[in-house]
Amino acid sequence: MHAYRSHTCAALTAANVGETVRLSGWVHRVRDHGGLLFIDLRDHYGITQVMADPDSPVFAELEKVRSEWCIKIEGNVLARDESLINKAIPTGEVEVFIRDIEVLGQSEELPLMVFGDQEYPEETRLKYRYLDLRREAMQTNMKLRSDVVTSMRKRMWEKDFREYQTPIITASSPEGARDFLVPSRQHPGKFYALPQAPQQFKQLMMVAGFDKYFQIAPCFRDEDPRADRSPTDFYQLDLEMSFVEQQDVFDTIQPVLQGVFEEFGGGRKVDDVWPQISYKDAALWYGTDKPDLRNPIKMQVVSDHFRGSGFAIFASLLENEGTEIRAIPAPKGGSRKFCDRMNKFAQGEGLPGMGYIFWRKQSADSIAQERGITVKEVNAMVKSGEITLGNEAAGPLAKNIGPERTEAIRQQLGLDVGDAAFFLGGKPKAFEAVAGRARTAIGDELGLTDLNRFAFAWIVDFPIYEADEETGKIDFEHNPFSMPQGGMDALLGDPLKVLGYQYDLACNGYELVSGAIRNHRPEIMFKAFEIAGYGKDEVEKRFGGMVNAFQYGAPPHGGCAAGVDRIVMLLADEANIREVVMFPMNQRAEDLMMNAPSDPTSDQLMELGLRVIPQDQ
Amino acid sequence: MHAYRSHTCAALTAANVGETVRLSGWVHRVRDHGGLLFIDLRDHYGITQVMADPDSPVFAELEKVRSEWCIKIEGNVLARDESLINKAIPTGEVEVFIRDIEVLGQSEELPLMVFGDQEYPEETRLKYRYLDLRREAMQTNMKLRSDVVTSMRKRMWEKDFREYQTPIITASSPEGARDFLVPSRQHPGKFYALPQAPQQFKQLMMVAGFDKYFQIAPCFRDEDPRADRSPTDFYQLDLEMSFVEQQDVFDTIQPVLQGVFEEFGGGRKVDDVWPQISYKDAALWYGTDKPDLRNPIKMQVVSDHFRGSGFAIFASLLENEGTEIRAIPAPKGGSRKFCDRMNKFAQGEGLPGMGYIFWRKQSADSIAQERGITVKEVNAMVKSGEITLGNEAAGPLAKNIGPERTEAIRQQLGLDVGDAAFFLGGKPKAFEAVAGRARTAIGDELGLTDLNRFAFAWIVDFPIYEADEETGKIDFEHNPFSMPQGGMDALLGDPLKVLGYQYDLACNGYELVSGAIRNHRPEIMFKAFEIAGYGKDEVEKRFGGMVNAFQYGAPPHGGCAAGVDRIVMLLADEANIREVVMFPMNQRAEDLMMNAPSDPTSDQLMELGLRVIPQDQ
Repeated sequence: MHAYRSHTCAALTAANVGETVRLSGWVHRVRDHGGLLFIDLRDHYGITQVMADPDSPVFAELEKVRSEWCIKIEGNVLARDESLINKAIPTGEVEVFIRDIEVLGQSEELPLMVFGDQEYPEETRLKYRYLDLRREAMQTNMKLRSDVVTSMRKRMWEKDFREYQTPIITASSPEGARDFLVPSRQHPGKFYALPQAPQQFKQLMMVAGFDKYFQIAPCFRDEDPRADRSPTDFYQLDLEMSFVEQQDVFDTIQPVLQGVFEEFGGGRKVDDVWPQISYKDAALWYGTDKPDLRNPIKMQVVSDHFRGSGFAIFASLLENEGTEIRAIPAPKGGSRKFCDRMNKFAQGEGLPGMGYIFWRKQSADSIAQERGITVKEVNAMVKSGEITLGNEAAGPLAKNIGPERTEAIRQQLGLDVGDAAFFLGGKPKAFEAVAGRARTAIGDELGLTDLNRFAFAWIVDFPIYEADEETGKIDFEHNPFSMPQGGMDALLGDPLKVLGYQYDLACNGYELVSGAIRNHRPEIMFKAFEIAGYGKDEVEKRFGGMVNAFQYGAPPHGGCAAGVDRIVMLLADEANIREVVMFPMNQRAEDLMMNAPSDPTSDQLMELGLRVIPQDQ
Repeated sequence: MHAYRSHTCAALTAANVGETVRLSGWVHRVRDHGGLLFIDLRDHYGITQVMADPDSPVFAELEKVRSEWCIKIEGNVLARDESLINKAIPTGEVEVFIRDIEVLGQSEELPLMVFGDQEYPEETRLKYRYLDLRREAMQTNMKLRSDVVTSMRKRMWEKDFREYQTPIITASSPEGARDFLVPSRQHPGKFYALPQAPQQFKQLMMVAGFDKYFQIAPCFRDEDPRADRSPTDFYQLDLEMSFVEQQDVFDTIQPVLQGVFEEFGGGRKVDDVWPQISYKDAALWYGTDKPDLRNPIKMQVVSDHFRGSGFAIFASLLENEGTEIRAIPAPKGGSRKFCDRMNKFAQGEGLPGMGYIFWRKQSADSIAQERGITVKEVNAMVKSGEITLGNEAAGPLAKNIGPERTEAIRQQLGLDVGDAAFFLGGKPKAFEAVAGRARTAIGDELGLTDLNRFAFAWIVDFPIYEADEETGKIDFEHNPFSMPQGGMDALLGDPLKVLGYQYDLACNGYELVSGAIRNHRPEIMFKAFEIAGYGKDEVEKRFGGMVNAFQYGAPPHGGCAAGVDRIVMLLADEANIREVVMFPMNQRAEDLMMNAPSDPTSDQLMELGLRVIPQDQ
């Protein structure tokens, strides 16, 4: 028999009754039923109930055993009484009568219980991560993460991609975030950087003719912490292809990700149609470039209905150039109570409020007033079928603009009795983000958002440039390496009108993927940088490796990178990245378990040619 | 048709004749056959011959095309004349008549030719790595590396291992080499370290109950450069298992590695029996703990034959305690010329020389002398069959110790006419390494080493401790985390006799794998450290994360790590690691292509709270 186990703790069934077995694992729970001792013995695979009575030669020893001790037992497999069978676990038909025990590892008093669902402060969980990770939810999350990454690899291989590793100790990469630096010992005073992404290397591989590359790539950004972001390293499914257009990249990555979501989505619906929405439309319809399409609400421009209307705030606002009124339709939101709540939401977001209209069934009262007859007469006419009650717009805004405009708005938005609409106006940039959040709140509150679904959309046609609001200075909006649509010709026109072959994938309100068809032509690249104010020298200094390479027969190429941590968070339905990372840092970028970061020795500093500046100066 | 290609450059065969196709790739070679222009068009997958004559509408444009331009062509697939078929490539039956061409990327004058086998200085190759990588040998090596890693992953998954990622920005790890440090911005003056190996994390995962872990893990050591070692990062197939003994680890990894070598060994023989050799025997038999077992030579102790013999150097040497004489048998090495050459080899290694004996056919001369008869008489007796000529030992050493001892040596070593033996003496530690190199040289020179073979051996039973030769101070020989054989009891005896459950895998003279069953019992670990002079406080300070974890029910566990780069080097038959790494540093740990390391900005230094010490002080 194997020195430690003949079976795992998930393996024994009624078929093993009568066998002598050996199991190793952790004491999950001990129960003392008056002379009978029951232990739930747990390993990575499952739980087996093992037990003893005072007849067992090791009963006295067993009585000493405590939670989370690691033990090895030997004993006979017994069938449980029909009434004691536990159908919830695969080993629930049997128990093992313990004849021998060896304590493999005792445990001190536990700072954190593995059994049960008690919550602990994050600092406790991270300091004792090895105990935290023993909990079922964490085991499940870590296995999920591993299986997701495995599935990604298999799917990429099936598509004839090879995985190639790129350097981790390298030069600064131009992703725009802050680099982690690594001082060089052999060149004191000089520094390497950890890559923010393998961007330049994957493009160099395309120049080198590798055609189809992918990597589950560690990426490093020295960023301030956020719940959904690691303060140090994170992983991307990074890929790049030669001789492709944008649609080729989409056709490559969609089946990979859709497949992963179908495989691990736990039965949640996975959209198989991924619409392509321009950056501009996304901003208009959803107020964000990472829309949650599970929420069916689509905003619309309704400026015309307010122009010259009795609602003075909007009417006068529209006289300024570049302003718009947009409506957020809220199907089934047609109650004053709901509308007031949403208005408060807007105030919480720093707006004076959100105008609204809601539609209710016409009252006999209003018809009576309209026709100059009594309510009684109206009721009689309704009863006889002579008239039917239509809809009626309510709310102060409706009164201000009158029934015709209100009705036109209702028709444009396709709303009816019981529905509402909210209105925001001004320069779109100023209210779009709030509008987006209001749309989310409305969808959530009204239960319009289908939480059992993964909804994807490609956001395309990003502008290459943006102008600084104050200075008017033109700079790259996204990533300086994307090919402008229309190539060199486009760059000779208005830079703010130039769109790029650049795209993001949004899923349930998160950005999952970002990518582009790259600018592989040195002359177009230099021109693109020139527009943003970077001279040839600076481009060569900052991106020399890649720019030089493009002088030697660069192929057209493009690709994307998908956030592995984010994908696992969505699949595991977790809001905090630390729930899906084995050994995460805390929010202050510290590892409390391993004690990092820590003080260097003076020898280390000396070798690196560095001195620490005292911080209290 | 796809915008860039209807086929790859490896796809067209006679079956495509008559089709209109589109190909994209690089101009590998241009040949101008008097008005006929032939281009070998190359992509990642292969080469297709494309051609044009002055009838082609784009002939003039084609004439401008130069080597390594990236182009797209469109044309008709034509069958080649029988006499022009190139059977060496899959597309050799056809060529494409070019009707249209687009230059996708021009090339400057090339610093390095892709076509052909010209050699270039390493600095040129690394600076223009994207061109170097276009060469066939490099494409092959990189694909091999990727495929080897893929195969490793698949084989580990088949064995129910999951891959889990461990932190890259973390605390110093106790592997004994120099760490790369990463200054912390959020905690100025403090530093993270890049992991030398995921050793502590994988052990923590076992404590956390993950049972079977592996990772293709990047490892970082700030080491001085060597041809077979990266000065920055390298990759290991790292694995760890719970509830196992040493043999379980062997049974797990052998099929994985053997399978990889069989899959990618290109038909070279792959041993399926992996002997287990103790560290002590390996030193004796092979003079190294990473023996090349393709070389059949096994050294032996022959001290007794020299004790009190006429060879004064050895005889007096043996009077000192701890000394030995060892023989290196050299089958088929029995010529004075060869023996002298090996003697010179030893002198080159700093020894005064190597004593040797070689055996030749007995001469009539020596029999005549021995029996006191004439040579003529001897020849007659040989002719009549009355006597046969036996063997005869030659060389100065043989004369000194006389025929009986010489014969006893010959019999012990199992040598015969035509063979030789070399002798080294002293304290084994002092000459073992040279003996090992002599064994290699002898095996190579005599062609005894089968170069078409991968021969593996587990080296086991490493001592836990060694004593410093000068101070006598006891320190860890290998790795402080291995379980001593015999546990706590063993540690209470002579530390220098304690062996560990610690092992290496040797293949063809390289160390491919290193591992151990870990010491998971805190009390044994503290004792082990105490013997090496480390107090409890220091252990807790340096290895606190792991030692603390072991207090909470640690399981017995063990594992190993296999060097991915080394394995690929062996399979690719390359002696330099830079031939199997996509973007390597040069020997001065510089990336000439990306310009790393480089000067930090003063803002960066300020944020990190660091100052660079001027180096000319």
